Amino acid sequence: SNTRELAVKFCIIFLLLISPSDSASWKTQKYHKPCKQFVLYYHDILYSGNDSVNATSAAVTIVTKLGNFNFGMLVVFDDPMTKDTHLLSHPVVRAHGFYFYDMKIKYDAWFAYTSVFNSSEHKGTLNKMGADTMSEKTRDLSIVGGTGNFFMVRGIATFQTDAFQGDNYFRLKMDIKLFEC
Amino acid sequence: SNTRELAVKFCIIFLLLISPSDSASWKTQKYHKPCKQFVLYYHDILYSGNDSVNATSAAVTIVTKLGNFNFGMLVVFDDPMTKDTHLLSHPVVRAHGFYFYDMKIKYDAWFAYTSVFNSSEHKGTLNKMGADTMSEKTRDLSIVGGTGNFFMVRGIATFQTDAFQGDNYFRLKMDIKLFEC
Amino acid sequence: SNTRELAVKFCIIFLLLISPSDSASWKTQKYHKPCKQFVLYYHDILYSGNDSVNATSAAVTIVTKLGNFNFGMLVVFDDPMTKDTHLLSHPVVRAHGFYFYDMKIKYDAWFAYTSVFNSSEHKGTLNKMGADTMSEKTRDLSIVGGTGNFFMVRGIATFQTDAFQGDNYFRLKMDIKLFEC
Repeated sequence: SNTRELAVKFCIIFLLLISPSDSASWKTQKYHKPCKQFVLYYHDILYSGNDSVNATSAAVTIVTKLGNFNFGMLVVFDDPMTKDTHLLSHPVVRAHGFYFYDMKIKYDAWFAYTSVFNSSEHKGTLNKMGADTMSEKTRDLSIVGGTGNFFMVRGIATFQTDAFQGDNYFRLKMDIKLFEC
Repeated sequence: SNTRELAVKFCIIFLLLISPSDSASWKTQKYHKPCKQFVLYYHDILYSGNDSVNATSAAVTIVTKLGNFNFGMLVVFDDPMTKDTHLLSHPVVRAHGFYFYDMKIKYDAWFAYTSVFNSSEHKGTLNKMGADTMSEKTRDLSIVGGTGNFFMVRGIATFQTDAFQGDNYFRLKMDIKLFEC
Repeated sequence: SNTRELAVKFCIIFLLLISPSDSASWKTQKYHKPCKQFVLYYHDILYSGNDSVNATSAAVTIVTKLGNFNFGMLVVFDDPMTKDTHLLSHPVVRAHGFYFYDMKIKYDAWFAYTSVFNSSEHKGTLNKMGADTMSEKTRDLSIVGGTGNFFMVRGIATFQTDAFQGDNYFRLKMDIKLFEC
């Protein structure tokens, strides 16, 4: 019948519309804004050898002689993350992971870490990795997975240097944007 | 015609139904159970300096003086994974990667590694990373990608400490759950 | 009416067709070929202690005594990637990250790094990790995320050893295949 023919035609149109090969428009639609977004501040207090009470990170390798920007210095951290810029605010997240410096001619770092949430608001983790190209005002790292309340998420973490004081303290603003929630 | 109008209406309804903005129900439907699941046991025999035949991992950094829980000790491993708890069972998987301890006040670790499958059953790899919060009974890490038989998968690996003997041997039960297969 | 009934039936058929539980055929359709593919060559010049001008990477840990294949040697790099095999060609990409050797009985490595694109053609990053099983002719690592022009991508990077000269230079051919663009 005519009706059946028409329905079959629409079938085909629908399948084309939802086909993964039409990924560009699908992606635009899917990713036009984050499904979840929030800002956290990451505080790193590097162990200098005599401040073990306050220190939250420590270098575990010797700096190489390749350039003058700490090339090869690898730092393991258990750093607090807070909702505002104050170091002593309640750490809603602990960031567990490491970074290292990796450039001869300027400061440049690479991060891999897990944000561990353990508050009334969120329980779970976000796993992230990427280049922290410190010469750029903002730089994007990948959120490659999550667990708990962040089960199977993906997204982008945008880093911005918020403060640094001498050799032993710096603070990053991290804009967390999840695009798969 | 009426038929055409009706079909157009259904078109719109379908597009709404499959729209990515309806991500919550879509996700619930997609992720309500793993598309693949299996359990493996991971054995780590740390090199003490004189057991190179049996050792499967070695510390490559010096432990820092930040606390008393090995903060900063980074261990590279090529560890066997078996289907049962016996260290000497056939290793169906080799786990290549590293972990490090990262807490001042208790034992806590962070892992990134690749499970390399090379058996008649499976060929390929799973890539994982995340926090091994050892004070929790179970802890979830992210499976962020895969190759070969595990091409493009994602999922969760749930760790549980199964045994530890002195400083040089521990065993983890790993419950591998793939949600994108 | 008959028309309405028919349309409802097609509704159900469509929903079944697009259902995520039918993941196998969906995946086959989605992943049958890369949505983007290109080849790059990665050059690593290891710092020997006296060639800091040319060196692009440096070992930051001491090799362990576990076997004779550099077990535990961890190398941080800022390596150029070029479109052809020539070391001195324009580096369209910088690769920031690290690798380490992890086997007692032969050479075997593990990589995690970020490809930083900063050309007229591409701006953005690709984040990758996985085992570089050097005894295999080709080996697949996971591309677990991306930013900028590579926003939210996933895929596979296939490594192939292209050259090695002594202890201080090697070149990898990397076949980059994105399956989620």
